[in-house]
Amino acid sequence: MDGRNLLDGWLAAMPPVAAMQIRTLEGDTDATVLRLRAPLSANVNDKACAFGGSLASIMTLAGWGWLMLRLHAQGDAAGVYVADSQVRYLAPLYDDLLAEARLADGQDWDTIARLYAGRGRARATMSARVLDANGVAVATLDARFALLRGGG
Amino acid sequence: MDGRNLLDGWLAAMPPVAAMQIRTLEGDTDATVLRLRAPLSANVNDKACAFGGSLASIMTLAGWGWLMLRLHAQGDAAGVYVADSQVRYLAPLYDDLLAEARLADGQDWDTIARLYAGRGRARATMSARVLDANGVAVATLDARFALLRGGG
Repeated sequence: MDGRNLLDGWLAAMPPVAAMQIRTLEGDTDATVLRLRAPLSANVNDKACAFGGSLASIMTLAGWGWLMLRLHAQGDAAGVYVADSQVRYLAPLYDDLLAEARLADGQDWDTIARLYAGRGRARATMSARVLDANGVAVATLDARFALLRGGG
Repeated sequence: MDGRNLLDGWLAAMPPVAAMQIRTLEGDTDATVLRLRAPLSANVNDKACAFGGSLASIMTLAGWGWLMLRLHAQGDAAGVYVADSQVRYLAPLYDDLLAEARLADGQDWDTIARLYAGRGRARATMSARVLDANGVAVATLDARFALLRGGG
């Protein structure tokens, strides 16, 4: 299922995210990778490149959105909460922001979903990155999320 | 020297930071701690508490601002760039955002300033946190910054 409209609705409802104009580029509920985008103009810093907080935000939201769409497809009113994250800023970005997220290496969705189905809670680690116009990563994020049934 | 007007000018010039309404609460150029604040209303998420990206942003900016004010007081047109950061989200925040930053344990400003003065570049690690209305930390950040003369 194409989850773009669903995810865009969630994103637009958060004032700081709406201000950063973060929107869904590709967000199928069963896709391996979720992609978000945002214009540089709404996310520029004092050096005419992308603000680090915007890079951290769009990568966190890409990981969060991936999990929210997966749980929504299972029919759950789920809460997905970021627990911690590590961000590396590799190079300045002078292009629009394009972020993609996927499950981190070693994570298995079937296992996470089974834990969540049985206990109403689980943890998942997501990897995300922001790419420049040439497809080179300018920032990376690894983040752990808590999934809680009925939360949110 | 009170650096509030200076720092508020830098913050307001960044569109995503202006949208989050992040402003200086205390920002002396020689103070141990710098404090920033932002209203919850401009930084709320889908769960009626503070958006994780806003928490990461205000903590990153508090560390960045501390270094920018120190270098400015030395008369330098400096560029301060975040290199990497680790954020822990400890509890949801239903109050306005209050962030404070200081040099991380084990860091010595005189040593950093001497390196920077001699080579035009140095690294500094900052610790920041966001406190709730009771003064309890709801998020923490440790971040490394690169200081480059003439950058920015």
